[in-house]
Amino acid sequence: MSEAAKTLDGWYCLHDFRTVDWTTWKMLPSDERQAAIHEFLGLLEKWNATQNEDKGSHALYTVVGQKADFMMMILRPTMEELNEIETEFNKSKLAEYTVPAHSYVSVVELSNYLSDGENPYENPHVRARLYPKLPQTSHVCFYPMDKRRQGNDNWYMLPMEDRKKLMYSHGMIGRQYAGKVKQIITGSVGFDDYEWGVTLFADDPLQFKKLVYEMRFDEVSARYGEFGAFFVGVLLGEDRIASFLDIK
Amino acid sequence: MSEAAKTLDGWYCLHDFRTVDWTTWKMLPSDERQAAIHEFLGLLEKWNATQNEDKGSHALYTVVGQKADFMMMILRPTMEELNEIETEFNKSKLAEYTVPAHSYVSVVELSNYLSDGENPYENPHVRARLYPKLPQTSHVCFYPMDKRRQGNDNWYMLPMEDRKKLMYSHGMIGRQYAGKVKQIITGSVGFDDYEWGVTLFADDPLQFKKLVYEMRFDEVSARYGEFGAFFVGVLLGEDRIASFLDIK
Amino acid sequence: MSEAAKTLDGWYCLHDFRTVDWTTWKMLPSDERQAAIHEFLGLLEKWNATQNEDKGSHALYTVVGQKADFMMMILRPTMEELNEIETEFNKSKLAEYTVPAHSYVSVVELSNYLSDGENPYENPHVRARLYPKLPQTSHVCFYPMDKRRQGNDNWYMLPMEDRKKLMYSHGMIGRQYAGKVKQIITGSVGFDDYEWGVTLFADDPLQFKKLVYEMRFDEVSARYGEFGAFFVGVLLGEDRIASFLDIK
Amino acid sequence: MSEAAKTLDGWYCLHDFRTVDWTTWKMLPSDERQAAIHEFLGLLEKWNATQNEDKGSHALYTVVGQKADFMMMILRPTMEELNEIETEFNKSKLAEYTVPAHSYVSVVELSNYLSDGENPYENPHVRARLYPKLPQTSHVCFYPMDKRRQGNDNWYMLPMEDRKKLMYSHGMIGRQYAGKVKQIITGSVGFDDYEWGVTLFADDPLQFKKLVYEMRFDEVSARYGEFGAFFVGVLLGEDRIASFLDIK
Amino acid sequence: MSEAAKTLDGWYCLHDFRTVDWTTWKMLPSDERQAAIHEFLGLLEKWNATQNEDKGSHALYTVVGQKADFMMMILRPTMEELNEIETEFNKSKLAEYTVPAHSYVSVVELSNYLSDGENPYENPHVRARLYPKLPQTSHVCFYPMDKRRQGNDNWYMLPMEDRKKLMYSHGMIGRQYAGKVKQIITGSVGFDDYEWGVTLFADDPLQFKKLVYEMRFDEVSARYGEFGAFFVGVLLGEDRIASFLDIK
Repeated sequence: MSEAAKTLDGWYCLHDFRTVDWTTWKMLPSDERQAAIHEFLGLLEKWNATQNEDKGSHALYTVVGQKADFMMMILRPTMEELNEIETEFNKSKLAEYTVPAHSYVSVVELSNYLSDGENPYENPHVRARLYPKLPQTSHVCFYPMDKRRQGNDNWYMLPMEDRKKLMYSHGMIGRQYAGKVKQIITGSVGFDDYEWGVTLFADDPLQFKKLVYEMRFDEVSARYGEFGAFFVGVLLGEDRIASFLDIK
Repeated sequence: MSEAAKTLDGWYCLHDFRTVDWTTWKMLPSDERQAAIHEFLGLLEKWNATQNEDKGSHALYTVVGQKADFMMMILRPTMEELNEIETEFNKSKLAEYTVPAHSYVSVVELSNYLSDGENPYENPHVRARLYPKLPQTSHVCFYPMDKRRQGNDNWYMLPMEDRKKLMYSHGMIGRQYAGKVKQIITGSVGFDDYEWGVTLFADDPLQFKKLVYEMRFDEVSARYGEFGAFFVGVLLGEDRIASFLDIK
Repeated sequence: MSEAAKTLDGWYCLHDFRTVDWTTWKMLPSDERQAAIHEFLGLLEKWNATQNEDKGSHALYTVVGQKADFMMMILRPTMEELNEIETEFNKSKLAEYTVPAHSYVSVVELSNYLSDGENPYENPHVRARLYPKLPQTSHVCFYPMDKRRQGNDNWYMLPMEDRKKLMYSHGMIGRQYAGKVKQIITGSVGFDDYEWGVTLFADDPLQFKKLVYEMRFDEVSARYGEFGAFFVGVLLGEDRIASFLDIK
Repeated sequence: MSEAAKTLDGWYCLHDFRTVDWTTWKMLPSDERQAAIHEFLGLLEKWNATQNEDKGSHALYTVVGQKADFMMMILRPTMEELNEIETEFNKSKLAEYTVPAHSYVSVVELSNYLSDGENPYENPHVRARLYPKLPQTSHVCFYPMDKRRQGNDNWYMLPMEDRKKLMYSHGMIGRQYAGKVKQIITGSVGFDDYEWGVTLFADDPLQFKKLVYEMRFDEVSARYGEFGAFFVGVLLGEDRIASFLDIK
Repeated sequence: MSEAAKTLDGWYCLHDFRTVDWTTWKMLPSDERQAAIHEFLGLLEKWNATQNEDKGSHALYTVVGQKADFMMMILRPTMEELNEIETEFNKSKLAEYTVPAHSYVSVVELSNYLSDGENPYENPHVRARLYPKLPQTSHVCFYPMDKRRQGNDNWYMLPMEDRKKLMYSHGMIGRQYAGKVKQIITGSVGFDDYEWGVTLFADDPLQFKKLVYEMRFDEVSARYGEFGAFFVGVLLGEDRIASFLDIK
């Protein structure tokens, strides 16, 4: 048996994608629509308060293409909180005019291909990455992935030493994008259908393509990567919510 | 032909996942909603009575993410009883406001890679595992799985001796989680689309990830495991049902 | 080119799975519901008459889990009759309250890996299997399957002699279940998405699991079997139809 | 690079499968139902006129099982005409009571593994096959297929010479069914998800199974065939349309 | 690690496929239908203005078969603009009578298997291809594709030199169709589920089939191509919109 990689685990994460039912939303009288938006902004206010207390974080993006209309990415210390948040949203007025489009359940994860000795959970740099305040870049990219277990391309049968080397050079590619792309890896083994979720943040969406494409030529992706659906989105700042949902 | 593994089989099992149609549920007058909840609690009372008589068991969990809103896991001595229970639920008032999201039909199974001689069905330790009272841990994880039959990675072509060894070391990983994760294996060959269902119970959901991830590096999973969808949930105790379904 | 196996073909077969829309069914006034049940029982009467004249057969089972609520398995000498029966059902009152869940089109098939000489279609034992009266066991299991054509595991590239040997030992497993499980194989090459449908009848549903699991270790299944969805059901005798559809 | 097979291409083809919404169809007042049927028969009259002028052809079949209720197969000289026909049907009254179930876009194709020299498009035998009047056999079978490109089983990497030999012996099987099964191959590379559509016509549907099954043992199918969904149907002659759609 | 191919990237691209809900569209009073068409033509006018200013481009095609009724292909300098355009369409009256059928998010891409030295973004020939005015050919073909990473057929593990050679001869096939088929490649790594979208424009749709089929025998496609769904359409010029949507 190969030695399992050690991981550090931070906040739990829910990616919640919704499609707006524009037809029924438009049929709603304007004041009820305003009330629904108002209620939703109230939820956001609560989430902001939590974020300000460093007890979680969240980010909202509209999604390009028909896979969804918007995405809420939410981080919390417990699964229970994520479950409560989605239920509270589900019971809201706005939710009556949205259709669930996709979701992903995971936990912020750092590969502990790192040093030993000190307790990483006490290291402030590590903590900042396990319990991150989500960036507010203009664009986001999300996709889930697996490490392949197929014939001769079986990641989980490789010796730890080999995996370490492969991941090291893989990580080197990522570093070239420092300052352009911020990446949050969330682990979902035992929680959802793929093994990891990858969320990329950038102000220039072309960097998503460059980064993912360059990595695909790296052995870790080329031989061992299996990718799910890709979602790309545009920041839905609170100032844009009203215009996004506005009906003239 | 390889020798088939012997199994011990206990209670039949139905995992029944439902999504709440919150929009129509909210439109229901408050007293009718209360009546629907009351009727559902009546079903639970009957299930509790059955459980108290050791004639079955059940557990309820809300599900994180959009795959479902809640899950009912039900154990009974016969398929007929499971079939009656789902039909009774389907005819209930609450069911009018839920949509079937997923289900899984199986039977509690112990691999009899064990000793011979005595009748295992008379062994009280074995009986406790074949006819278990389901734990009430704060979290649950469910996924179905197959043993792979693909090219050189064909579990069913391995000699019994090899399978025994592989399963033994696989089981050793599970034992390290004793006290943290309780696992119930149900067999579904001939009943549903995968060969087994795995239901994990834990108070710390991170243990699901650690256990499943560690096992993935073990040859049994690495080379021979094929996994279906993963569901993760939070205990829906009877005291929480009202608040979960409550509409302000 | 490998020599094709010869088959004997009997009655055409339709497996028709339906889900009940309980919500609208419950909204129906009681007398209209009774009229719908009455009309359905009238269809069954006609089917019974056909069965009594040895011009076809049928069996009804409720299905465990969410894949469907009930299954009608119907045998007739021609495709036209099956087509008429499904259309007649589709136009019935009850059909308004059901949703198509799955179907399978095939023909009763015997592998003629048998003797030569006499005309098998005149052999009464063969006829009884080609034009069977369906058993009324308490449980049913249905699944479709293919023989694999993948890399080195390509059934259709094997010499006839090898296939015969493999099928012979495969059949030996089935014989151990004589008296416990009755099996009807229907061929669906050219008719539906898999190559065969397998319908198993038993009074003890655990025998489905034992049989299918034991066979999975046999080379025919281990290397060459590809399986579709599995359905398991409970006999829906005419005496149980009223209670199954009854709304209090 | 392997040499591409030359093809001859005739009329464009649309297979259009529809499911009847019997519930709403039955709710329609009888005279409106008659008007809808009348309008549909008017479309057929136009299609008949086109067929009589040798400017296209069509065939209608009811489909056995739940995949669809009926299928319209339409041949025309241009894509534009097919597009107009489907749009005209979509705007018809009958279409309000049907649901699209499946469609396939292709073009009648002959493999030009034939002789050189003369212009095949002027050969009357070739023309009769490129611009065929569709048979009115009592049964139809439709399925799409690909040639496999997988590991060592890669049709498109084979030398032309090998493909020719394989196709020749494959064609020999088909010839044994002359008089029993008429086959129309339509090419769909660039038009739809598979590379070919196969439509078989026969008065005895068992011949579909015999033909497809026998071919499956031939190397072209055994090693190189990938098959999509299979549909089987019963002739829907104009005389049967009224009774098919009739509601008592 | 293989060296990643360099790409040049132009306008972002949205392929937006819609199905018309003809039943509800027909129920709309004629003047409201006209208003909806009028509003849609107003959107097109804005898109035309953008196109005239060389700040984007678009093309509309009706789709043959049931996959969709029409397709809007839209090019813009930013993701934000694409996102705004789809949202504006979603809020329009016409959108109430359409159902999202499929979409694809990508960016116009040129493989920079080209020369070095000069800045390609200043080369007018390159610019014309990165920021193209979409052709108005009578037919369109769209499909997404991946380069395969499977066992020995792993594009991303090939040395750059080999990929260059393979792509060169692949490109030679395309050149034979110059004047017959215009091809726009859009990259979607990080944006959507496949790695590229291919949009072909031609006045003779048979050329789509000839081109794609001929390429399939080329090693790049034969060993390394994985293809998604294919869509084929007929030009929906502004003059045809009224008749396409017209209800008599």
